Amino acid sequence: MTAAFDLDSWSVGHLARVEAALSQWVVADAPADLGLAMRYAVLDGGKRLRPLLVLAACEAVQGDPHAALRAACAVELVHAYSLVHDDMPCMDNDILRRGKPTVHIKFGQAQALLAGDALQALAFELLAPDDGDADSFAPVMQATLCRLLARAAGYAGMAGGQAIDLASVGQTLTEDRLRQMHALKTGALLRASVQMGAACGLSGHLTDQASASLSDFGAAIGLAFQVVDDILDVTADSATLGKTAGKDAEQDKPTYVSVLGMAQSKAYAQELHGLALAALQSSGLSNTLALQALADKVVGRDN
Amino acid sequence: MTAAFDLDSWSVGHLARVEAALSQWVVADAPADLGLAMRYAVLDGGKRLRPLLVLAACEAVQGDPHAALRAACAVELVHAYSLVHDDMPCMDNDILRRGKPTVHIKFGQAQALLAGDALQALAFELLAPDDGDADSFAPVMQATLCRLLARAAGYAGMAGGQAIDLASVGQTLTEDRLRQMHALKTGALLRASVQMGAACGLSGHLTDQASASLSDFGAAIGLAFQVVDDILDVTADSATLGKTAGKDAEQDKPTYVSVLGMAQSKAYAQELHGLALAALQSSGLSNTLALQALADKVVGRDN
Repeated sequence: MTAAFDLDSWSVGHLARVEAALSQWVVADAPADLGLAMRYAVLDGGKRLRPLLVLAACEAVQGDPHAALRAACAVELVHAYSLVHDDMPCMDNDILRRGKPTVHIKFGQAQALLAGDALQALAFELLAPDDGDADSFAPVMQATLCRLLARAAGYAGMAGGQAIDLASVGQTLTEDRLRQMHALKTGALLRASVQMGAACGLSGHLTDQASASLSDFGAAIGLAFQVVDDILDVTADSATLGKTAGKDAEQDKPTYVSVLGMAQSKAYAQELHGLALAALQSSGLSNTLALQALADKVVGRDN
Repeated sequence: MTAAFDLDSWSVGHLARVEAALSQWVVADAPADLGLAMRYAVLDGGKRLRPLLVLAACEAVQGDPHAALRAACAVELVHAYSLVHDDMPCMDNDILRRGKPTVHIKFGQAQALLAGDALQALAFELLAPDDGDADSFAPVMQATLCRLLARAAGYAGMAGGQAIDLASVGQTLTEDRLRQMHALKTGALLRASVQMGAACGLSGHLTDQASASLSDFGAAIGLAFQVVDDILDVTADSATLGKTAGKDAEQDKPTYVSVLGMAQSKAYAQELHGLALAALQSSGLSNTLALQALADKVVGRDN
């Protein structure tokens, strides 16, 4: 069904724009090595799934590419800051991330804490350029993007999910509670990526139906991403993952695999993939091949 | 000169509104005790200097009170999150704040880290209400407020100043470098408080001169605040301060007192006070008594 669409070809130009923009906006000359720590955390060869989702959703609604590039980078900065803080000794205490020493190993805990904090602030700064910036865009769009990102990052989104995660170590969770945890911890930002891309469209152009469908699509792939993550934590090795494999079991964290078993987890990932594609279809949007291909990749990935 | 203006009477109603709004917006039902940690960090009897500056600046420009209340709370949330992270063992390792155990002592380091992160996100969420909120306000104002807060909180503001602070332990700083550190670490958010209050005015109503003068006012009292802080760290006791006194010297941190000496530090605080009042005068705004009284208080405070 997606044979006619080559995701890699589509991605290459978009990824180059995202990397260049991140390198431009995450400046090295912040005081006292803070900029170096921030760049180390961000410019490290991540998969950039969230930026690609923003850009693909923006294309689906024929939105403003300037707004979308800033939104794509802002989402990635929030993702990057969450990894920096997650890796710290008081959280997951991880020393390896994408094959490199984690930020606190390289720069010390205090600098890692500050770099994460500054990356979150920078994300919102990117979303609110002033009139003097050549790539500025409508204030109403700026405000909407700030709202979507703030909600997805905060207590009712990513941070809330991490709090559940913290509290769930050593606990037996029901499938519902596990789904709630992941819908917040990982899902909220992935869904927001799609919503933010859609918000780069001119209001009025996007029907309520299309908007709701894209949000459903984002929610489904957000959850699918985490189910696959839990599967890979068991089946892949650290070199392929670029991070420590088997960490969930070692830390006694409940996962889809521990709650549903491996076979049912794989079936659930496929089910979510189907839900995502169905949501795209019901959006009524014509230009959704990139979103569809990204959904395929989320479920089919091996790292 | 300000005898006719009673700051306490002016403050009482504004403080009540700020406390009620913070208590409403920092919800307790965030997952897994995250909300409790966030509320503990915020609803703790701080002086609310930053919110009062926002509200006073908004009054000076006859701005939108709904926008100002949200801006006031947003600035306080950023201030509160910075204290939570600052107090953590990898930073200042403080166990007492405003006479209570610090957040990481009460809730653990991981929850403190998350609570700080979630408070920062919530600050931006407050600034971008959607149309459905009864107290929503113009998107262009939302975007401006997000821009001002993000810049003040990030690498070129508070977080950058903290990075210099980290790097300066045990160092001898020049007065210029010390001023730069404090202009960022404490000054940026205090100045942003005034700027955000001013941004709640209708654009067009506020002259460039008034806007620049208010920004200068904010910068002067921001620096004065820190000079007085450094003086009080030497002269006050922990009970009066509500935090550990003598901490700077103990941690071998450069301060105005260590760089300029006590007498010159006190003279510098008075000089900054004078600069602040002069900036107010040159603003051409008539309703600046509350801002003037707050400047008096910043310099005259004993805790």
